[in-house]
Amino acid sequence: MGGDRAPAEIVAGAVEAAADGIEVVLYGPTGLESRGLPLVGAPDVIEMADKPADAVRAKPDSSLVRAVRAVGDGDADAVVSAGNTGAMLAAGLLHTRRLPGVLRPAIAVPIPTRNGASLLIDVGANADCRPEHLLQFGVMGAIFAEAILGVSHPKVRLLSIGEEPEKGNQLTLEAHALLRDAVELDFAGNAEARDLLGGVADVLVTDGFTGNIALKLLEGTIVELFDLLREEVAATTTGKLGGLLIRPAARRIRGRLDPELHGGAYLVGLRGLAVIAHGNSSRRAIANAIRLAARGVDNRVVERLAERFPERTPRDEPAAEPLGA
Amino acid sequence: MGGDRAPAEIVAGAVEAAADGIEVVLYGPTGLESRGLPLVGAPDVIEMADKPADAVRAKPDSSLVRAVRAVGDGDADAVVSAGNTGAMLAAGLLHTRRLPGVLRPAIAVPIPTRNGASLLIDVGANADCRPEHLLQFGVMGAIFAEAILGVSHPKVRLLSIGEEPEKGNQLTLEAHALLRDAVELDFAGNAEARDLLGGVADVLVTDGFTGNIALKLLEGTIVELFDLLREEVAATTTGKLGGLLIRPAARRIRGRLDPELHGGAYLVGLRGLAVIAHGNSSRRAIANAIRLAARGVDNRVVERLAERFPERTPRDEPAAEPLGA
Repeated sequence: MGGDRAPAEIVAGAVEAAADGIEVVLYGPTGLESRGLPLVGAPDVIEMADKPADAVRAKPDSSLVRAVRAVGDGDADAVVSAGNTGAMLAAGLLHTRRLPGVLRPAIAVPIPTRNGASLLIDVGANADCRPEHLLQFGVMGAIFAEAILGVSHPKVRLLSIGEEPEKGNQLTLEAHALLRDAVELDFAGNAEARDLLGGVADVLVTDGFTGNIALKLLEGTIVELFDLLREEVAATTTGKLGGLLIRPAARRIRGRLDPELHGGAYLVGLRGLAVIAHGNSSRRAIANAIRLAARGVDNRVVERLAERFPERTPRDEPAAEPLGA
Repeated sequence: MGGDRAPAEIVAGAVEAAADGIEVVLYGPTGLESRGLPLVGAPDVIEMADKPADAVRAKPDSSLVRAVRAVGDGDADAVVSAGNTGAMLAAGLLHTRRLPGVLRPAIAVPIPTRNGASLLIDVGANADCRPEHLLQFGVMGAIFAEAILGVSHPKVRLLSIGEEPEKGNQLTLEAHALLRDAVELDFAGNAEARDLLGGVADVLVTDGFTGNIALKLLEGTIVELFDLLREEVAATTTGKLGGLLIRPAARRIRGRLDPELHGGAYLVGLRGLAVIAHGNSSRRAIANAIRLAARGVDNRVVERLAERFPERTPRDEPAAEPLGA
């Protein structure tokens, strides 16, 4: 029931993914047209405007909470939703729980770039971070990039305000030192924000505040520039004709930058996999999200994370109240 | 001598501004072709790659340091340079010095948006900030927007990860409360990064780390999208024809988003005005930067800042080592 086009597009995407042999189970109200897929009844709905943590507690029988709980209970390997991001995070923390040793679960988003996807992690689960959180984001991001995006030996960079190690704020200066000393990582140093779309890294590590600002600025700028182009092209007759002729080119650019290609945002660091698709996801986006979740399951991404963070550290702590990125 | 096109384009821009009646003095090596403008000899040059603080100390006779010192010594009202940003900041702190009561000078950049310019402050002078710094950035930004950008009753917003006051990191949560309680400000709450180009505020307050990431991401995304468009348009014959026809529209967009319109970055909070033009500034950009500096002088921007921050507060502190944004 999550997302602007639920339930029809969600069900259609699920049907498309099921045709690939993926075992898809729907969670939603009894009587929903599930087009032959198994349906688990969940009478309630968490709305996009609901306060995440409150909604998750108040609506245990919502499709979102029931589906997330299925992963926590071992009834499913992964959950996909186009619903409320903050509620997915809150439900994940409450019902799927963190992997032992993971200090802070994070939200990772594959950004389409010139050289394939760059995984930006964290984009909003943790607005305030410590250096050791950023180190873990790097490790989790690298495992994720290997298991789900199919990158071998992912190159990890730290988002900062200069490529030199001495450029940054206190957090990135200390995180840089930790990442540099992590022998298991292919750490390539700092990356500047201007190079983000150029694809300078497979994994780009940042705190959840900066990552959220960067992601939304990127999305907003792309939308705004296409709007400006449409406006200015439509302002003259010659422009309108030119606009018709470049329409296929504009469509190819949209295709190259399409966030739907990569399924959406991933909650990383829990005892199961959770994918948060865009709120306005089409059936194709939902199908892609389910396929990528299935690939993560096949490639044992959660087990690989668990092996990497084998035990609770003394600094382990309860996760902060989710912020609803 | 600063900037990629120095000295010819710098001198040409100075000549253009002088034609408006602005009294322009050049600082550079003796023998420079100054096209009739007065020239103060400065034999040394700070390069773009020089380490800011070191270079300012090691090269007291550089054109950059001499010009900044002229403001500190009262020989000039404002300084304009297309040189090393970090060196301008370091020289400003050393030779022009902070206004009493200003905790941290900041770098402000007017971002071209749909509704005129939004002043983003700070974009890199202070990588780590406290909430009271952000409050001062808001106050300084509002005075600056009035005196230089000509906005009456500027609307101030805080860059964060949600419009709701409770969304943000520790810094923005506390800064939000301070800004809200500042009766002299027209504080309109948080703004999200996706709305930056939409022009949601006259002044957009942020810490220097986030502001620098946002500015560079914006610049990088615009460049990358135009590159992608050029590539995809050139890929087919029809596209190429369309590309020719929309060229005027593309030029109009570039004009609307042109950072050269607003002169560059401004060092705010010193006992004089300093403008840092883009490194690749044309004569037109330099002339605009000089005109805006002159407007700031005419509108007494430094005096207005001094009146607003009347005395040293107990929390006054030495400014951090500049980071060379």
